[in-house]
Amino acid sequence: MFYHDKRLQYKVRVDKPNPAFARMLQQAIGGVEGEIRVCLQYLFQAWGSRGPVKYRDMLLETGTEEMAHIEMLATAVALNLEGAPASLKDEFAKDKMVGAILGGMDPRHILSSGQSAMAVDANGVPFNGSWIVGTGNIAANMMANVHAEASGRVLATRLWEMTDDPGMKDFLAFLIARDTMHQNQWLAVLEELGGFSGQLPIPNSFPQSEEVQGFNYSFVSTNISGDSQAMGRWSEGPSIDGKGEFKFVKAEPLGGEPQLGPPDPRGHAQKEEMTGNTGGISGLVDKVKDALD
Amino acid sequence: MFYHDKRLQYKVRVDKPNPAFARMLQQAIGGVEGEIRVCLQYLFQAWGSRGPVKYRDMLLETGTEEMAHIEMLATAVALNLEGAPASLKDEFAKDKMVGAILGGMDPRHILSSGQSAMAVDANGVPFNGSWIVGTGNIAANMMANVHAEASGRVLATRLWEMTDDPGMKDFLAFLIARDTMHQNQWLAVLEELGGFSGQLPIPNSFPQSEEVQGFNYSFVSTNISGDSQAMGRWSEGPSIDGKGEFKFVKAEPLGGEPQLGPPDPRGHAQKEEMTGNTGGISGLVDKVKDALD
Amino acid sequence: MFYHDKRLQYKVRVDKPNPAFARMLQQAIGGVEGEIRVCLQYLFQAWGSRGPVKYRDMLLETGTEEMAHIEMLATAVALNLEGAPASLKDEFAKDKMVGAILGGMDPRHILSSGQSAMAVDANGVPFNGSWIVGTGNIAANMMANVHAEASGRVLATRLWEMTDDPGMKDFLAFLIARDTMHQNQWLAVLEELGGFSGQLPIPNSFPQSEEVQGFNYSFVSTNISGDSQAMGRWSEGPSIDGKGEFKFVKAEPLGGEPQLGPPDPRGHAQKEEMTGNTGGISGLVDKVKDALD
Amino acid sequence: MFYHDKRLQYKVRVDKPNPAFARMLQQAIGGVEGEIRVCLQYLFQAWGSRGPVKYRDMLLETGTEEMAHIEMLATAVALNLEGAPASLKDEFAKDKMVGAILGGMDPRHILSSGQSAMAVDANGVPFNGSWIVGTGNIAANMMANVHAEASGRVLATRLWEMTDDPGMKDFLAFLIARDTMHQNQWLAVLEELGGFSGQLPIPNSFPQSEEVQGFNYSFVSTNISGDSQAMGRWSEGPSIDGKGEFKFVKAEPLGGEPQLGPPDPRGHAQKEEMTGNTGGISGLVDKVKDALD
Amino acid sequence: MFYHDKRLQYKVRVDKPNPAFARMLQQAIGGVEGEIRVCLQYLFQAWGSRGPVKYRDMLLETGTEEMAHIEMLATAVALNLEGAPASLKDEFAKDKMVGAILGGMDPRHILSSGQSAMAVDANGVPFNGSWIVGTGNIAANMMANVHAEASGRVLATRLWEMTDDPGMKDFLAFLIARDTMHQNQWLAVLEELGGFSGQLPIPNSFPQSEEVQGFNYSFVSTNISGDSQAMGRWSEGPSIDGKGEFKFVKAEPLGGEPQLGPPDPRGHAQKEEMTGNTGGISGLVDKVKDALD
Amino acid sequence: MFYHDKRLQYKVRVDKPNPAFARMLQQAIGGVEGEIRVCLQYLFQAWGSRGPVKYRDMLLETGTEEMAHIEMLATAVALNLEGAPASLKDEFAKDKMVGAILGGMDPRHILSSGQSAMAVDANGVPFNGSWIVGTGNIAANMMANVHAEASGRVLATRLWEMTDDPGMKDFLAFLIARDTMHQNQWLAVLEELGGFSGQLPIPNSFPQSEEVQGFNYSFVSTNISGDSQAMGRWSEGPSIDGKGEFKFVKAEPLGGEPQLGPPDPRGHAQKEEMTGNTGGISGLVDKVKDALD
Repeated sequence: MFYHDKRLQYKVRVDKPNPAFARMLQQAIGGVEGEIRVCLQYLFQAWGSRGPVKYRDMLLETGTEEMAHIEMLATAVALNLEGAPASLKDEFAKDKMVGAILGGMDPRHILSSGQSAMAVDANGVPFNGSWIVGTGNIAANMMANVHAEASGRVLATRLWEMTDDPGMKDFLAFLIARDTMHQNQWLAVLEELGGFSGQLPIPNSFPQSEEVQGFNYSFVSTNISGDSQAMGRWSEGPSIDGKGEFKFVKAEPLGGEPQLGPPDPRGHAQKEEMTGNTGGISGLVDKVKDALD
Repeated sequence: MFYHDKRLQYKVRVDKPNPAFARMLQQAIGGVEGEIRVCLQYLFQAWGSRGPVKYRDMLLETGTEEMAHIEMLATAVALNLEGAPASLKDEFAKDKMVGAILGGMDPRHILSSGQSAMAVDANGVPFNGSWIVGTGNIAANMMANVHAEASGRVLATRLWEMTDDPGMKDFLAFLIARDTMHQNQWLAVLEELGGFSGQLPIPNSFPQSEEVQGFNYSFVSTNISGDSQAMGRWSEGPSIDGKGEFKFVKAEPLGGEPQLGPPDPRGHAQKEEMTGNTGGISGLVDKVKDALD
Repeated sequence: MFYHDKRLQYKVRVDKPNPAFARMLQQAIGGVEGEIRVCLQYLFQAWGSRGPVKYRDMLLETGTEEMAHIEMLATAVALNLEGAPASLKDEFAKDKMVGAILGGMDPRHILSSGQSAMAVDANGVPFNGSWIVGTGNIAANMMANVHAEASGRVLATRLWEMTDDPGMKDFLAFLIARDTMHQNQWLAVLEELGGFSGQLPIPNSFPQSEEVQGFNYSFVSTNISGDSQAMGRWSEGPSIDGKGEFKFVKAEPLGGEPQLGPPDPRGHAQKEEMTGNTGGISGLVDKVKDALD
Repeated sequence: MFYHDKRLQYKVRVDKPNPAFARMLQQAIGGVEGEIRVCLQYLFQAWGSRGPVKYRDMLLETGTEEMAHIEMLATAVALNLEGAPASLKDEFAKDKMVGAILGGMDPRHILSSGQSAMAVDANGVPFNGSWIVGTGNIAANMMANVHAEASGRVLATRLWEMTDDPGMKDFLAFLIARDTMHQNQWLAVLEELGGFSGQLPIPNSFPQSEEVQGFNYSFVSTNISGDSQAMGRWSEGPSIDGKGEFKFVKAEPLGGEPQLGPPDPRGHAQKEEMTGNTGGISGLVDKVKDALD
Repeated sequence: MFYHDKRLQYKVRVDKPNPAFARMLQQAIGGVEGEIRVCLQYLFQAWGSRGPVKYRDMLLETGTEEMAHIEMLATAVALNLEGAPASLKDEFAKDKMVGAILGGMDPRHILSSGQSAMAVDANGVPFNGSWIVGTGNIAANMMANVHAEASGRVLATRLWEMTDDPGMKDFLAFLIARDTMHQNQWLAVLEELGGFSGQLPIPNSFPQSEEVQGFNYSFVSTNISGDSQAMGRWSEGPSIDGKGEFKFVKAEPLGGEPQLGPPDPRGHAQKEEMTGNTGGISGLVDKVKDALD
Repeated sequence: MFYHDKRLQYKVRVDKPNPAFARMLQQAIGGVEGEIRVCLQYLFQAWGSRGPVKYRDMLLETGTEEMAHIEMLATAVALNLEGAPASLKDEFAKDKMVGAILGGMDPRHILSSGQSAMAVDANGVPFNGSWIVGTGNIAANMMANVHAEASGRVLATRLWEMTDDPGMKDFLAFLIARDTMHQNQWLAVLEELGGFSGQLPIPNSFPQSEEVQGFNYSFVSTNISGDSQAMGRWSEGPSIDGKGEFKFVKAEPLGGEPQLGPPDPRGHAQKEEMTGNTGGISGLVDKVKDALD
C-alpha cells in the first residue's frame, strides 16, 4: 500500500508563468514518453512479478518514485497556467500576442480543467493504457523500461531547451538526472542476470534449436536499387549474443502465392466472387455462348 | 518506393483451421507487440533519419521486410478462418463445442471482415498509431526497437506453445528466428556507435554537468516497511555507463508543499473556493459573528 | 511525494484460481468504473486544487488509498491466472471445458502479460485518460467523484455476485465498504459547503440573472405520441436548489431555420454546391433554355 | 422513433465569425463534457430502463432535447467558420494575425470538414463511446447525469466568458439555463426516490451486513508528513446516508506481502525467473561452488 | 430540433433471449458499420450543408430515421440479455454450456450496463467519433454514405444468418430493406447532380489541368514477380469519368533519394548523428590516425 | 513480399520550410483521409481476397504504391520542419511571429519526433486501425475505397490551396492526379462486375425476397414542420439499381412501446426499480395506507 507526504520530492518553481509551456509539459505527464506511463508500467510489472522478490521490490520503489514525478509536473503545469488568458474577446483584437499565446496553449486548460494539469499529452490526446507494457518476462520488461527512460530523457532535454525560466530549468535538470539513473538501473538488472550473452535472445527460455535455422543471424536486404549501404556491425562478425555469426543476404521469396478458399456463402460476398464470373451480365452471356460452342 | 512480389517470404500452411487461433494471431498483427507496429516504426524512423545514411538504409530494408511479415500473418488468419462457424443457431444448441469456439473466436472475423485479418489485436482493439515511436535520436530509437522485438519474440513463442498445427508451428519458428536477428541487429548499432559507455545516458549530447548532481546515479528507495530488498547491481558499484557510482538512498522530500494561486474568477470555480469560506451559510454567519466580536 | 509499504491494505486470497474471473476483475482495474480512474482522478483534482487546503489534502489521501486498491486488484488477477490454460492444442480437443474457459478469459493474459494484470478493462480495451475528470470547480468535481464511486460500487457488487470463491468475496466486500465511505465522503464536502441550496446550480459563481430566464426550471417535453408520462418531482414544485419553481412545458422551436453561407471556393465543394445547379448537365441545359425563353 | 423540425430550439446568431471560437465550441459538442455525450447517455439509459416507465419517458424526452443542442452548437461552429483563412501563403507573411488565428483554430475545420462541425473536442480528439455511462441502476445513473450537467454548465460559463459576440453570449446563456434545469432534474429523481438516506449507498439493494464492517464509514488517512488537515464534515459526525458514523483512521496494512507462484514455463519468462538464479553465469558458478562446499 | 414518439419504427421481438447474440448486435450499434455512425454522419453532414437546401433536408430526415434504428437495436440487445447468466460460480462447474455462453457474451453487459446496450462494438470497443465523416463536399459525402450503407447491409445480412429467432430475423429483414433504400438514395443524389461524368473526379471544382499530367489515368503496377494479372476494366479503355484513357504502366522512381539536413542540436540527437562519426571511440581513433597519416 | 527502392516515386522539394504546413501534411499521413489508411486498407483487402485473383493482385499493387505515398509525405514533413523553432524563450518575447508559428505547428514535431513525421493527424491524434475497412465483399470494399480516394483528393486540393511553395504544389499535384486515377479505378471494378444494376444492393447475394417488402425503395420523411423539401431523384422514379420504384412516405411507428422485463436482482439495480415503489419512504407509507384502506 502507499502513503503520501505533502511535500514534493524536489522543488518546483515557476518564475514566469507561460501557458504555452504548460501545454508542452503535458507531454511529460500524459504522453507516450511521460510519467504516468512509467509509473504505472513499473508498478504493474511489480504486481505481476513472479521471479526473485528483489526485482519486484525495486520496481515497486521506482514506480512509487515516478508517482512523485507526476505530482511535480502537474504542479508545474498549474503554476504555468496562472495568469493564462481566459478570453478571446477584446484582448484578442488589441494584442496579437494574446492570440499567439492562445494558439500555443491548450484551450482545454481553461475550458475543461480550470488551470490544472490533465491526463493528456501536448496535443490533448488522452493517456492510453496500451502504453503500459509488462510481458511477464523480466528481460523484455527491462528493455521496455530502458526504452521508456531513453525517450523520456530525450523529451526532458528538449523541454529544458524550450524554456529559460530558471525554476523550470532546475526542475527539469532534476528529472533529467533521474532518467540517467533509471536508464542505468534497468540495464544493471540485465547485467546482473548475465548480460546480453546470457539474456539474449529474449526470451532465453525458448530452445533456439526450434528456430528455423539460417534466418536467426542474417540481415535480410530488401533493397532493389543498386548496392545496399545497410552494412555495419550487424551484417558480419559475431552476433551480439555470441550465439551466431551475422550474415548479409538478399531477400527472396521462400513461400508460394497464397491460395485462399472460396468465401462462405453465409458471409455474403458478391455473387461474382463466389462464381468467379467477373464479366458482369455480358460476361455471363459470353460464358454461356462459349459453353454452347 | 516499394515493389511487391506475389510470393510470400516464407511458407504459410494451416493444416487444421482454428478460428480461436486466428484471433490469437491478431495480436501479432495489430497488437502493441505486433508487426504493423514494427513495420511502420522502422519506416518512420528511416524517413526521419538525419544521421549517417547507412542507418537509414538499414531501417528501410528491415521495415520493408516486416511488411512481408504482416502479409504472412494476415494470410495465416484467413486460412485459420476457413470453416469458421457463421451461425449461432441450431448448432449452438446441438453442440456445446461450437459455442466454445464461438466464444474463443473474434465475432468480427465473421461480422466485419468476412473471414479476413483485421488491423486489430486479439481483443479486437484497433491498432494505434501512438505505438509507432521515433524520437529523432538513434540510440533511443534502437532501444525502442529492441523492446519491440523482445516483446514480439515473447509473443511469438507463446503463440508457438498455443498450437500443435505443424504448419503454424513452422511458420512461427521462422518469425521467432527473425526476431532473434532483429534483437541482435539493433543492439549491434549501439555497439558500433560506442556501446553503453559511449551512448549512455541517452541523449549523450546533453551536458551531464547540467543535471542536478547527486541524483543521477542514486537508487531512491521509497520503501517504508522494514528493510528494502531492492538491492543489487544497481545500488552499488560503477554505473553501467561508467560515468558514475551507484548509491542507495532513502527517499526524502526536498521541495516544500506546493502553493497554487487562487482560481481565476472567469474560470467559475465555486464561490467558496474563491472566498475561502468553506462552512456554508452557517459558516458564513459564524465568520461574521467572529468579525463582530 | 509517495512511499510504499510491501504489505497490502487488505488481504487478497484466491481459493480457486479462475482465469475467467481474472478477466472480469480487469473491469475494476482499467475500466471506466475502475480504480486507475478514481486514483488518478482524485490525485489530479488535488494537484490542481486552488481552494482551501483541507480539500486538497483529503483528495491526496484518498487518491493515495486508491493506489492500494489497484495493487490489490492486480494481485487478485495474477492469482486467478495461476493455472490458466496456455495452449489451444490437445486439451482443446479433449476437453470442451478448456475451450469454454479460454473463451471466457482474456487471451492477452497469456499472450501479452504472462499471467499478470494489465491496464485494460474486461474486454481488453485500454484505460483512457479522458476518464480522469477535474474541472477546477470543487462541486462539479465532487459530483464526478460520487458518480465514480456509485458506478464503482455497482460494479463491485456484481463481481461479488459472480464468484463464490470465499477469498475473493471477502476482498470484494472490503472494496464495497470503502465505496460506501467514499460516496458519503464526497457528498459530505457538498454538505459542508452549503448543500444543494448553496452549491447549485454548479458553478454557483455564475450570475443566474445572465441565464435566459424562463428555461432554467422548466422540464421540456419532446414527446409527440399522446400524453407524456414524464411527470414527477421534477415537473412541478420548488426546484432542488430552492431558487426556482419546476414547470412542465412542451418543446417548441424558438429559432428559425439555420442559414449558412456558400462554401469557400478554396474548400473545393462540388461545383453544383457553389452554383446551386443541382440538375446535372440536363438541368443546366434546362436552366439555359429557361433563361432564353 | 424520432421526428425533425427544421427550426432550431433557440436562435443561433453569430455577429462576428471567429474560427478560434469555433474550435472552443467543439468542446461542447464532442468533448467529454459535451452534448453528444449527454444526448446518447440519456437515450441509452432510457433504452435500457427497466424500472417505472416514467423515468424511461423522462430520459427519452431530455435525450431528445439534447439532440437539438448538438444541432445548435454545430450550427454555431459552421457560422463561426465563415471567412476562416484557407491558406497559409501570402496572408501569413503579410499579417501575423492570420497566423495567430490559424494557430488558434482547428486546421481540420478547413482540411477535413470544409467549414463544418465535427464529432471531436477542442483539440480534435474524437468523441469516445466510453463516456456514455448507463449502469442499469437509476441512482448511479442520476449521479452520472448530475456530474455531466455540472461539468457541462462549468464549460458553458467558460465559453460565455471567452466571447463578447452578443449572439453567441445569448445562445450560451440559453444552454446555461438548460443545464441549471437538468442538474435540478436528476437530483429531483433522487429526492423522489427517497433522497440520500433512502438511496445511499448506491446500490441500495446490496445488503450492507455483507460489507466488511469497520471500513464503510471511516476516512482512511494515508498522510505521513505531520498532522493531516484532511478533516471536516467527512471525518466525524453522522454519515450522509444516516447509516453510520464518520471516523478518522490512520492507514495501515491489513494484508501481508503478496506471494505469486512461479511463472508457467509455456509463458517463456527468462530462465533466471524460473530458477531463481539471478547472478548470471558467475552467479551460477558461485551457487555450484557453494553446493560443493 | 427533434421530437420523440414512444413507439418504435418497426416491431422488435425476441422469441428466445440469447446473450451471445446481444453481443453480436452491438456491432450494428456502436461498430464502425453501425447505426450511431450513420445517424451522426448524416446529421453532421446536414448541419454543415452549404449547398441547395433539399440535400440538407434529406440528410436531416434520414439521420433522424437512423436514430430510430439505434433505438430498435438497443431494445433488441436489452431483450436478448434477459435471463443472461449473472454468475460464474456453481453453474459454471455444473454446466459447461454456461461457460460457453459467458465466453460468447460481453461480460460488460452484466458488469457495466446491467443488461442494457452500450455504445460499443461486438468486442466492447467504444464508438469513435472519427468514423463520422463529412467533408463539406457533397459527392465525397455521398460516397462515404454509400460505403456506410454497403458495409452496414453486409453486416445485417450476416447477423440475419447468425440467428434463427423469428423475431430477430424479421427485425433484421426490415433493417436490410432500409439499407437497400439508402444505398440507392445516396447514389440517386450523384445521378441527379450529373452522374460520374459530371461529378468525377471528386472534387470536380479543382482544375484538372493543374494535376501532374500523365498520371491521372494510369494504373501503376508495382508487381515485380513475373507478369501482373492486375488487368481489367481499369487498365485500358476510357476512364469511368470519361475524361481520360486508362493505361497500364510499370512503377518507376521519378524522384531521387531524399536528403534531409542535419539534426537541430537543441533536439538532442546522439552526438554521432550530428558528427557523422559512427565508429564509436575506436572509430574516432581510426579517424584521427587516418588524419595523421 | 516487398522490396524497397531508395528513390522516391516522385520528387519532393520544399523551397521554404514551414512547420505549420508540416502539421497540415500530417492529416494526409495519419488522418482518416490519409495514406496509411489507404495503404493498409488495400493490402488487408488483398490479403483476405477470396474472389478472382486479378482483384487481389490489383489491390496488392495499388496498396504497395500507397506505401510510396506515405514515404513522400513523411519526407515532405521532415523537410518542412528544418529550421522549426525549438524554443519558447527569448524569441517568443522578441518576435510575435515565432509564437504564431509555434501555435500553428505541432509541438510534438519537436518534443517527440525530433523534426520527423509521425503516425498522427493534423491535431496529433494517432492513426487508428478501425479506419481500415475490409468486409470480405468486393463491392462494399470498392465503395469504401472510392470514399477513401474522394475524401483523400478533397484533402489534397485543400493542402494545395494552403501553400504557395512551388515544390509542395508540384508534389501535391502529383498526389491529386493519382487520386483521380484511383477513384476511376475502383469504380471500374464495379462496372466490370456489372455496374449498379448488377451489384446493388450490396451484398447482391442476399435474396431480396427476404427483405421486409415495401420499405426497400421508400424515402421515409421524418420532417414534422410543414412540407419537406427532401424531394429529388430519390423520391420518385426507378431506383438506381433498377429493381424497384422510389416512393416518398411519411414516417410512422409500426412497433409498439418496448416492454423490458424487471432487472435481475443480482445486477443490483436500486430496490425501487425492482419493486416499482418510486415514492421513497413516504411513498411507501402512502402505499401501505392505501392498502389498508
